[in-house]
Amino acid sequence: MFKKILIANRGEIALRIIRACKELGIQTVAVYSEPDIESLHVQLADEAICIGKAPSSESYLKIDRIISAAEIADADAIHPGYGFLAENAHFADVCASCNIKFIGPPANAIRLMGDKNSARECARKAGVPVSPGSDGTVDTEAEALKIAKKIGFPVMIKAVAGGGGRGMRIATDEATLINGYHSARHEAEKAFGNAAVYIEKFIVNPHHIEFQVFGDEHGRIVHLGERDCSLQRRNQKIVEECPSPLMRQELRDIMGNASIRLAETVGYANAGTMEFLVDDDGNFYFMEMNTRIQVEHPITEEVYGCDLVKQQIQVATGEHLSEHVINAKPRHHAIECRINAEDPERNFMPCPGLIELYYAPGGRGVRIDSHAYAGYPIPPNYDSMIAKVITTASTRKACIARMSRSLNEYMITGVKTTIPFQQQIMQNADFLAGKYNTGFVEKLLQAGR
Amino acid sequence: MFKKILIANRGEIALRIIRACKELGIQTVAVYSEPDIESLHVQLADEAICIGKAPSSESYLKIDRIISAAEIADADAIHPGYGFLAENAHFADVCASCNIKFIGPPANAIRLMGDKNSARECARKAGVPVSPGSDGTVDTEAEALKIAKKIGFPVMIKAVAGGGGRGMRIATDEATLINGYHSARHEAEKAFGNAAVYIEKFIVNPHHIEFQVFGDEHGRIVHLGERDCSLQRRNQKIVEECPSPLMRQELRDIMGNASIRLAETVGYANAGTMEFLVDDDGNFYFMEMNTRIQVEHPITEEVYGCDLVKQQIQVATGEHLSEHVINAKPRHHAIECRINAEDPERNFMPCPGLIELYYAPGGRGVRIDSHAYAGYPIPPNYDSMIAKVITTASTRKACIARMSRSLNEYMITGVKTTIPFQQQIMQNADFLAGKYNTGFVEKLLQAGR
Repeated sequence: MFKKILIANRGEIALRIIRACKELGIQTVAVYSEPDIESLHVQLADEAICIGKAPSSESYLKIDRIISAAEIADADAIHPGYGFLAENAHFADVCASCNIKFIGPPANAIRLMGDKNSARECARKAGVPVSPGSDGTVDTEAEALKIAKKIGFPVMIKAVAGGGGRGMRIATDEATLINGYHSARHEAEKAFGNAAVYIEKFIVNPHHIEFQVFGDEHGRIVHLGERDCSLQRRNQKIVEECPSPLMRQELRDIMGNASIRLAETVGYANAGTMEFLVDDDGNFYFMEMNTRIQVEHPITEEVYGCDLVKQQIQVATGEHLSEHVINAKPRHHAIECRINAEDPERNFMPCPGLIELYYAPGGRGVRIDSHAYAGYPIPPNYDSMIAKVITTASTRKACIARMSRSLNEYMITGVKTTIPFQQQIMQNADFLAGKYNTGFVEKLLQAGR
Repeated sequence: MFKKILIANRGEIALRIIRACKELGIQTVAVYSEPDIESLHVQLADEAICIGKAPSSESYLKIDRIISAAEIADADAIHPGYGFLAENAHFADVCASCNIKFIGPPANAIRLMGDKNSARECARKAGVPVSPGSDGTVDTEAEALKIAKKIGFPVMIKAVAGGGGRGMRIATDEATLINGYHSARHEAEKAFGNAAVYIEKFIVNPHHIEFQVFGDEHGRIVHLGERDCSLQRRNQKIVEECPSPLMRQELRDIMGNASIRLAETVGYANAGTMEFLVDDDGNFYFMEMNTRIQVEHPITEEVYGCDLVKQQIQVATGEHLSEHVINAKPRHHAIECRINAEDPERNFMPCPGLIELYYAPGGRGVRIDSHAYAGYPIPPNYDSMIAKVITTASTRKACIARMSRSLNEYMITGVKTTIPFQQQIMQNADFLAGKYNTGFVEKLLQAGR
């Protein structure tokens, strides 16, 4: 087992990893940027090393400083969390060359799945359905037009190196296609240093369903069911649930096995997530793989009774997948709300600032993953998520009731949060009936205008 | 289902009940004493009614005021929580006569089990072992001496109406017996208005094991396994765990079935707890029954996957025991620490006062049941418990590690708490080995002196 792990991240996920390490008896090293000096991950780790200023490009993305910190602290492994360097294959390579274990998949798997085109190619090889599209990058306007006409509008133009909705455009006709082609390339060049785009059929209001996969370094891969992440605003998830109200066991088996096949194709190990679009008839299309732990991993943990972050660490030491994970069966129902410091009444504008009062809900079936506390100054430099509330109950109905009472109890003053909007979702008749797709949030927002 | 429930209690258990009601869609009425006006149960209930001043005899024990509050608010049921009026058969009768449902067992069962002598008598009838003793009250010094000689020293002198260690004396020889007989009677008279005492064999450093029973109003009674409550300081539990490290399935079946038989003997319904003393060889002796929900009920909830407070409410409406409860099987391991505002370095002297900073631990497998928050003035009038930390994990070892890291995260300033002492227990080699009995805490304290 590792003696000391450096956590190359901040916020709640840094805390999550520190907690897992403490429970496993592993020493922890936090790294932090100057504005994060008052962060809980700095206070709760055994050691903490400042690695620079905001923005992230000056600290959390600085590979050389993070490696130096690991060497100074004599850490034998690095956990990258999610975001920042978590899906950076080069970082995984550098860790290996410095004899520091990267707690995640092999660099080659990150590389294969990080490029959207090659990921689709791998999916095709594994016999996993992908949406009709360009089968490669689209390098001219003329080619874009030709493909769009072939697969039929609407289509989506997506950056090969994309993520988080950047470098992504929807085109409904020739004019929006030509416009979107150029603006997506421009945005992708700026955001990722790579202008390449590809084209996919755009499925209107699909369900966003993702499968948790987990592999060890001996070739064994399992899946731990799905999460329904259809509740998104501008491609940012705000509520997730497990199991999906859409899912039946037969489809779960088919999609789960497809996910395992695809993971096997790229020699995957450790935690990963296959994202699919699913239409109302249960047709599914592979979208992309996230080669890391996911923000919403706790709902899988609650339903399947596993500790995914501990399992990540254990598997990275060369342990076999635990029997506990291999035999895990879904029990109960879990929902997560991402609490963001944003003002839902002002178009979800971020609200950094000082948290004055802070009272988190508690009691049976309530889990809080958060780095917030009374007196915490939310820095303006990072994403606005300050907490995740996860509720678990034996039925979906009881789980929603528990979430609703938990959101009601949550008291955060000093900054605006998304809680009132999530509370509105918990009361919505369609949501209560399990009838929602990726169009739900926008529709709810429009109805409120 | 009830429309509105009045909660005749305060602190964390009032919150616990309010949360269950909210999740069941039931309106709530809090009652409170003047010093409790800033309490969370007052803030989170739908309505709140002041019922008088401290001490409890002027408010939380005032049956007439509580009934008036229920009538004013038009509540159709009262949940008594634990302590205060929870085991007062007269209160249950008054509720019934006012057509308000008392959420608890029948008044007659409270009466039979509330008197220690009659409880022992019921146990004998049900074929449940009781420790050798006086088989009734001991009314003279001479009789006391005779019985003590017959069963052999050491013996325990206990008040018939006793509880919480009051009216209780240990006698190791004739002199301490005579002295203890009179002082126990004196204390019992003062505390309970009833001087009657009985005598029992005193078992040196036994294990304190209790069984959760649950009955519906149709005669069905089940048990939900045991809790080990041997970690006590002056008869006050400070750490509880489920399952007990001492327990084997065979003994669990025997003691569980004995508990069901005894509950059946008194026509029991709703939640109740049978307390036993168990020696190292697995011999067990019925001690007493608590005819109410117990402080430490959450560890059973976590291990058996049930919501006991919701089930109390459901059963009180006449529902049958849920299949979920009937078929509940133990999974995982759970530990509870009672966090008291007391100074472990000053003989656990209570430390009421203002909580300044407050940060509760979170993350996977951590449950917090607490009415504390930053800025909460702990009133000096009530017991000193301000929070319960419950951790759950798949193994005892992982559960202890999780408790240890949770206690480590807990930040409460402004008042002293028992956290450092409980942290010490979590590190103790004998505790880690599961080797402890009711003598453990005193031994640990003496070693530290």
